[in-house]
Amino acid sequence: MMNDQYYMQLALDLAASAKGKTNPNPLVGAVIVKDGSIVGTGLHRKAGEPHAEVHAFRMAGEHAKDATLYVTLEPCSHFGKTPPCADLVKESGVKRVVVAMEDPNPAVAGRGIKRLRDAGIEVEVGLLEEEARRLNERFIHNMVTSLPYVISKFAMTLDGKIATYNGHSQWITGTEARKDVHELRNEVDAILVGVGTVLKDNPALTTRLTDHPGKNPIRIILDRQLRTPLDAQILQTDSARTIIVTAQGQEENTKVFKNTGAEFIYVPLVDGKLDLQRMLEELYKLNITDLLVEGGGEVNASFLRHNLIQKYLVYVAPKVLGGRHSVTPFTGADVETINAAVLLDFAEIEKIGEDLRITAYPKEG
Amino acid sequence: MMNDQYYMQLALDLAASAKGKTNPNPLVGAVIVKDGSIVGTGLHRKAGEPHAEVHAFRMAGEHAKDATLYVTLEPCSHFGKTPPCADLVKESGVKRVVVAMEDPNPAVAGRGIKRLRDAGIEVEVGLLEEEARRLNERFIHNMVTSLPYVISKFAMTLDGKIATYNGHSQWITGTEARKDVHELRNEVDAILVGVGTVLKDNPALTTRLTDHPGKNPIRIILDRQLRTPLDAQILQTDSARTIIVTAQGQEENTKVFKNTGAEFIYVPLVDGKLDLQRMLEELYKLNITDLLVEGGGEVNASFLRHNLIQKYLVYVAPKVLGGRHSVTPFTGADVETINAAVLLDFAEIEKIGEDLRITAYPKEG
Repeated sequence: MMNDQYYMQLALDLAASAKGKTNPNPLVGAVIVKDGSIVGTGLHRKAGEPHAEVHAFRMAGEHAKDATLYVTLEPCSHFGKTPPCADLVKESGVKRVVVAMEDPNPAVAGRGIKRLRDAGIEVEVGLLEEEARRLNERFIHNMVTSLPYVISKFAMTLDGKIATYNGHSQWITGTEARKDVHELRNEVDAILVGVGTVLKDNPALTTRLTDHPGKNPIRIILDRQLRTPLDAQILQTDSARTIIVTAQGQEENTKVFKNTGAEFIYVPLVDGKLDLQRMLEELYKLNITDLLVEGGGEVNASFLRHNLIQKYLVYVAPKVLGGRHSVTPFTGADVETINAAVLLDFAEIEKIGEDLRITAYPKEG
Repeated sequence: MMNDQYYMQLALDLAASAKGKTNPNPLVGAVIVKDGSIVGTGLHRKAGEPHAEVHAFRMAGEHAKDATLYVTLEPCSHFGKTPPCADLVKESGVKRVVVAMEDPNPAVAGRGIKRLRDAGIEVEVGLLEEEARRLNERFIHNMVTSLPYVISKFAMTLDGKIATYNGHSQWITGTEARKDVHELRNEVDAILVGVGTVLKDNPALTTRLTDHPGKNPIRIILDRQLRTPLDAQILQTDSARTIIVTAQGQEENTKVFKNTGAEFIYVPLVDGKLDLQRMLEELYKLNITDLLVEGGGEVNASFLRHNLIQKYLVYVAPKVLGGRHSVTPFTGADVETINAAVLLDFAEIEKIGEDLRITAYPKEG
């Protein structure tokens, strides 16, 4: 049935097709419908390019008059790289606008909707809002906190092991799941590991896709004592930027890295550990809007204990490893009771090849 | 559509309704159809009671003549507690029999089907065979190995922890998942823990259901050194049998338990550990056809490393615990590489309350 929900879903699907390409902007889709026919469609493809509404109105032309606009995010009311979309909507002659969610950007936050209503346009807000919020979970977090959206990703056996006692972990999951991780790297601005992972696995942390070109995320190494070897693969491959996060006071010691192209961020120590909150603030200033944490157990636990994880992506392999000293995904300081666990909600369980992918979010409230 | 598959599915559903009540017998359902109408239905309810076919033919009476019989397991050809069903089928006058699977019982194994075909009855074998095999996975294993069917069950956080460093584990999963475990206890003949669990949690290991009466499984404790305290709850509650499995040579030392009602099985030690294969042989002689292992990491790993697990039931809670010394579901000796992992297939993933239940089987071949 071609109803409001149908058109909004289409707008959401259009928006989603640009996943990972619009950062720091949100994903937005727009559909214009006149007398039961779609007369305009558009999506925001990339920061700096036109907004979704602009494309849709260009396509619709004069058909926009008295039509309905479905848009996944409130039309903007401010001058950014482009003029306010709310003005464009007003001028287009549409008589009704259906909006999935308000723009969390403090510069908009309802002002776009108000501007339309003030112009006599009928505006409805909240259709498929949950889907729209999930689609722009990264953007909403950015707007609300001014911090990157942090995704904790790990691959484990069914008995919760990410490596054997000696660090062997290749491969826990199958080819499809590993390909899925490369798709994920292609969508995020940055990827983070601890120096332990660099020393043990010497990874390149680049995006390797076989069927379409990918984008390499910025590679970030947590390295308090500057133990990253100068010949590490991560410093040899110059296809992506590398940022080493180390302690304030290490400035002199980073000079040996000057020919590697590595950049440095210096943060204070808290209880002998790098201040992750401060690091995230610095990364956001560098326009890093999301961060994939592929840490070992200690790095993961540091993010966990400071409540800095917004999303969990867990690949579970149909394998049982055992082993008293096998490595688990979250370690860190021991807690006394189960009540100390961080509570989540399972959002999605999907089979990827022979493995499972579990998506979970911190429980709200 | 009322076709062969429809009637066989109905027979399977009838069979499944007696889950846990027919041991050591299989689950069997039967449906008799004449001219597009069901004229007889039946299921095997309990060992010692009539087979499914008997109930169905009693209901059908003379309507069985020229009808089709759908039965989930090959009709038996031998005299057990009841006369051979194959003879009953022959005498009934049905002209066609559809069988989901051959009886794996060496005393039958195709002889029932042959007897029907020799009598001129049309017999088809293999309709919904996979479902039928899964339904009777326990029985098939019993027939093929003469050992109990072993189910490894554990509840863990999303980061693979079954307890904190000090053994605290109440509760990892929510009420629905815990209720599900009690339903499971209601279906199995026996439940096994290590003495470590007895010392730490002092469980009763009884079936506690709120909406219908339950059956208590036999409780089995692996206790090489006879460390089970005389005042353990498991020895105080006499609503279920308790069997302590200990080492040969401990016969004298078990005398202190004589007033507790506990029974004993003595097995040799292999590499200093109780011989689990031998234990299973002894348990099967006691008519224990399936065994729920709710062990800690070491007990679980012993079963794993001897390839003694037929099924995995894993409850995953939406929680992240962390902790360097938190307890994991399988421990035991460390292995060098991921290749040493036991391979499984995920069969079913279900949401139970807020938790997940993952069902997995050892990979075939």
